[in-house]
Amino acid sequence: MASSTVPATCKVVLAGTIAKALLVEVAEGLAKLNEKPQLVGLLANDDPAAQMYADWSAKTCIENGFQFDLRKVQKEDIEEAILAANVDPTVHGIIVYYPIFPAPSKQDNYIQQLVSLEKDVEGLSHTYVFNMYQNIRFLDPPTNSQKSILPCTPLAVVKVLEHLQIYNSILPYGNRLFGKTITVINRSEVVGRPLAALLANDGAKVYSVDLDGVQLFTRGQGIKKHRHEVHAQEGWSAKECLPLSDVVISGVPGDKFKVETGLIRDGAVCINFSSEKNFDGPAVKENASIYVPAIGKVTIAVLLRNLLVISACSRDWQELLLTCSPTETRSESKAANATSSA
Amino acid sequence: MASSTVPATCKVVLAGTIAKALLVEVAEGLAKLNEKPQLVGLLANDDPAAQMYADWSAKTCIENGFQFDLRKVQKEDIEEAILAANVDPTVHGIIVYYPIFPAPSKQDNYIQQLVSLEKDVEGLSHTYVFNMYQNIRFLDPPTNSQKSILPCTPLAVVKVLEHLQIYNSILPYGNRLFGKTITVINRSEVVGRPLAALLANDGAKVYSVDLDGVQLFTRGQGIKKHRHEVHAQEGWSAKECLPLSDVVISGVPGDKFKVETGLIRDGAVCINFSSEKNFDGPAVKENASIYVPAIGKVTIAVLLRNLLVISACSRDWQELLLTCSPTETRSESKAANATSSA
Repeated sequence: MASSTVPATCKVVLAGTIAKALLVEVAEGLAKLNEKPQLVGLLANDDPAAQMYADWSAKTCIENGFQFDLRKVQKEDIEEAILAANVDPTVHGIIVYYPIFPAPSKQDNYIQQLVSLEKDVEGLSHTYVFNMYQNIRFLDPPTNSQKSILPCTPLAVVKVLEHLQIYNSILPYGNRLFGKTITVINRSEVVGRPLAALLANDGAKVYSVDLDGVQLFTRGQGIKKHRHEVHAQEGWSAKECLPLSDVVISGVPGDKFKVETGLIRDGAVCINFSSEKNFDGPAVKENASIYVPAIGKVTIAVLLRNLLVISACSRDWQELLLTCSPTETRSESKAANATSSA
Repeated sequence: MASSTVPATCKVVLAGTIAKALLVEVAEGLAKLNEKPQLVGLLANDDPAAQMYADWSAKTCIENGFQFDLRKVQKEDIEEAILAANVDPTVHGIIVYYPIFPAPSKQDNYIQQLVSLEKDVEGLSHTYVFNMYQNIRFLDPPTNSQKSILPCTPLAVVKVLEHLQIYNSILPYGNRLFGKTITVINRSEVVGRPLAALLANDGAKVYSVDLDGVQLFTRGQGIKKHRHEVHAQEGWSAKECLPLSDVVISGVPGDKFKVETGLIRDGAVCINFSSEKNFDGPAVKENASIYVPAIGKVTIAVLLRNLLVISACSRDWQELLLTCSPTETRSESKAANATSSA
C-alpha cells in the first residue's frame, strides 16, 4: 500500500471543542441562579492587546448569559475604581487588564491584591495563589464548600488535559496525573510556574523549562507527599526533558521560539498555550498522538466558570456551588488533609 | 503530618469489577437473541486444572443465561466429538480443554484446527490467528459485519486496559494506544505473543520479554504502518524495558518468578495475567499507580462475549452483532484498509 494512503495518526483537538463542553456546564449552573452575574472589566491602559482581551471577554460574557461592564479609567484612578467595584453589590466579578504600570515597576502586583477575594475571578489574590501552591483546595475548611479559585490559564490547561483523558479518572481525585511525565516550557509567575505546580500537585512529574534551566516539580516517589517540591535539574535543558515526556506544554511568548520536534517522544501529547506558534504544526503532526494548537477559548470559558463559582459563593449558595462544578479535579478528602496540615 | 496518615496512592483494581461491566454488556446482547446459546465443553484428559476450568466455565455460562454441556470423551474420540459438535445446530460454541496430547506431541495443534470457524469461541482457528497478527478485524470485507474472533486471554487484557483508560478514546479506533510503552513478560504462542501483537496493532510500542531475549513490536514512528513489525532488541533484558514502560503486563507461569519492583517506573500500571503472583504485591503498591493482581474473571467474561458474538454471527444477525459490541476497540475503517491490502 502506498504511503500516501496512510491516514494521519495525530488527532488535532481545537480549543473551541473543549470550551463548548465547559460552557454547557456553565450554562447549567447559571440556570440555577436568579440573576445574571455581572463581570466588571477595568481598562486603564492603551494596550491594543488588552483592549482585544476586553472585547473578547465582553462578547463571551454576553453570549453566555452574563452581564459585562467595561470601565475605562485613568491609570491614577485604578485603585479607586477597584475599591468601588469591591463594595458594589451589583458587581460579582472584577477583571483588571494588565499591564497598567509596566515593568520594571512592580505597582501592578500591588494593584492585583486590591481586588476583593470574593470578586477575584482571575485567582490572582495572594490567598488563592498561596492555596494553589500549597495544594489547599477550599477556602473554608473543614466545611469545604467554597472552592479556592485557580488562575484561568493554568486551570484552562488542566481542563484541556482532562478533556484529552490525560487525567485518568480511574485514579482518585487529586492523584489523576500519577505516572505521567510532563514538560512545561515557560516558568512565568502568571502561567508557567503555577501550571507546573498544579500538575505536580495532581500527581505528575513535571519538568519546568525556562531560560535559566530546568526544575523538577514532583510529589516524590509514589506521590507520597501532599504537595509538590521543586528540585533544580543541574545541567539539564529541554533536550533531556522532552524525550521523557508524555505531554509537552509550551507557552513561550516569542515568535522565534519553536519546540524541537525531533526531541518529542513518538506519540506524545503537545499543547501550545502561547499566542505564538511554539510547535512546528506539520512536523509535530508526524509523530504526536494529540496536538492542541491553542487554548484561548478554553481560558475564556474557565473565566466564566470562575465567575459563576464566585457568584454562587458570594451568595453562600454552597449547594449550587458544588453542583455547578461536577468535573473539578480537586480532591475533597485530600484538600481537607492538606488544609488541616497547613 | 505523620507519614502514617498518607493515603495509599496505588489503586488496586480487581478482575471482578472489570468483568461485571462486560457481563452487563453480554446480558444486553443476550436479551436480543430468541434462544439461549449453547457452549459445549470437550474434556479429554484427567488434568485437575482442566476440570477446574470446565467447572468454572459451566458455572459462569449458567449464571449468565447461556447453556453449557460438558462432554467427557476419551483422547482417541476427541476428533469425532469435535466434528459432531461442529454439525450439531443446537451447539453454538465449542471449547476444548487442553492439553490432550501433551508436548512434545504437536497433535493438539492439529485438534485446534478441527473446530469449525463458526463455533470457535476461543479464537484458535488459523484464520482468526492470522487475522489477529495481520490486524484484519472482520471476516467479511468489505461488509465488515462479522468480527474476527480474538483469543480470550489477550482480549481480556485489552478489556482490562480499556477499563483502566490506558486506551485513550480521544484517539481514533485502532490507534488508541499510540504513545504508550508497554512491556509484556512471556511470549508464549497462547497469550504473550498474540497480546504483544494486539497491543502493537492498537498503536503501542511493546517490549516482548522472554527467556530468549527482548523483541520490540511496533507500527513504527508515528504508527504509520498498518500492522506491527517485530525487531529483536539485541542485548536487552527486562532491565532495559521496565524503566521505559507505562504499563507492565506479566504472565510467567512459574511460582519463582517476580518482576523486579525496583525497575518499574514510578506511577506505572501493573497487570498480572499469570495464575502465579508475578508481582510482589505490597512492594508494587508503593510505586505503581494501578495494580491488577489477576484477570481470570475478565477472561471468562470475554469467553461469553465471544460466544455471544459467534451465536449472533451464525444466525447472520449482523445488526445485533454490531450493537452488542459497542466497546470493541477495533477500527472499522482501518480494518477495511488492512483487509484491502491483505
